[in-house]
Amino acid sequence: MWLRDLTTLECKRVLDENRLARLACSNEGRPYIVPIYYAHADHSLYAFSMLGKKIEWMRANPIVSALIEEHYTRRGWKSVIVDGRYEELPDTDGYRAKRERAWSLLSKHADWWEPGALRMAQPAASDQSSPIFYRILIEQLSGREAH
Amino acid sequence: MWLRDLTTLECKRVLDENRLARLACSNEGRPYIVPIYYAHADHSLYAFSMLGKKIEWMRANPIVSALIEEHYTRRGWKSVIVDGRYEELPDTDGYRAKRERAWSLLSKHADWWEPGALRMAQPAASDQSSPIFYRILIEQLSGREAH
Repeated sequence: MWLRDLTTLECKRVLDENRLARLACSNEGRPYIVPIYYAHADHSLYAFSMLGKKIEWMRANPIVSALIEEHYTRRGWKSVIVDGRYEELPDTDGYRAKRERAWSLLSKHADWWEPGALRMAQPAASDQSSPIFYRILIEQLSGREAH
Repeated sequence: MWLRDLTTLECKRVLDENRLARLACSNEGRPYIVPIYYAHADHSLYAFSMLGKKIEWMRANPIVSALIEEHYTRRGWKSVIVDGRYEELPDTDGYRAKRERAWSLLSKHADWWEPGALRMAQPAASDQSSPIFYRILIEQLSGREAH
């Protein structure tokens, strides 16, 4: 059994080959953590979500961290930590191209709508509610592998 | 497809029936997230780790959050969020009983030593290094189920 650091290239490969991450944000010294589905492109993780605690907290403090894990055998794993910055892609002309890129990336995946969009199927408090597109700009990547 | 909140009892059952959590802590507005193995007892998650960033950050700010997920079918899942407080179980007489309880709980699990103790197999900077036992005192539990 050995443990080693992943190179940046290897970290990026883990981001490419997975789509489930656990995203942590924090607000006034309190961390919060949720699973998200993402698509990796443009040195960013693209994702979307309905408005809620996670989005409110990231708007207040855009410094976030994401964990992506790859369990390829019972005794071996890779894990990558992304330190990054939340950037919302609002539904305005200036962001249309980025939103379309996000949608095109995310919709390539089967099940892309889970769990971020699951609430869409629920009765919404407001019928105007629509998903919020965002990306995590990757500022630092680190990873480890155990074998 | 529906989504519902879990009762406290259902949340506790998820904690009992799993042992992998993703733990988030934060330091000066920056979140950090790592996978841990835990044992659930005494309204706490018991775990251990070698000294490192995670332990240093939780010593500085003991307010943490943990995510426990249960994927039981391709289209259904449960997730539980623990909001809690880090408590170290130092190797002193006053904590001996708690440490022994932690060890006894954790050692019941196969593979209990991954990934927290994996570094034990690595050449240590100091031969005096030993694992740090701690628990997350559960202050609030919330959970959701999708089906």
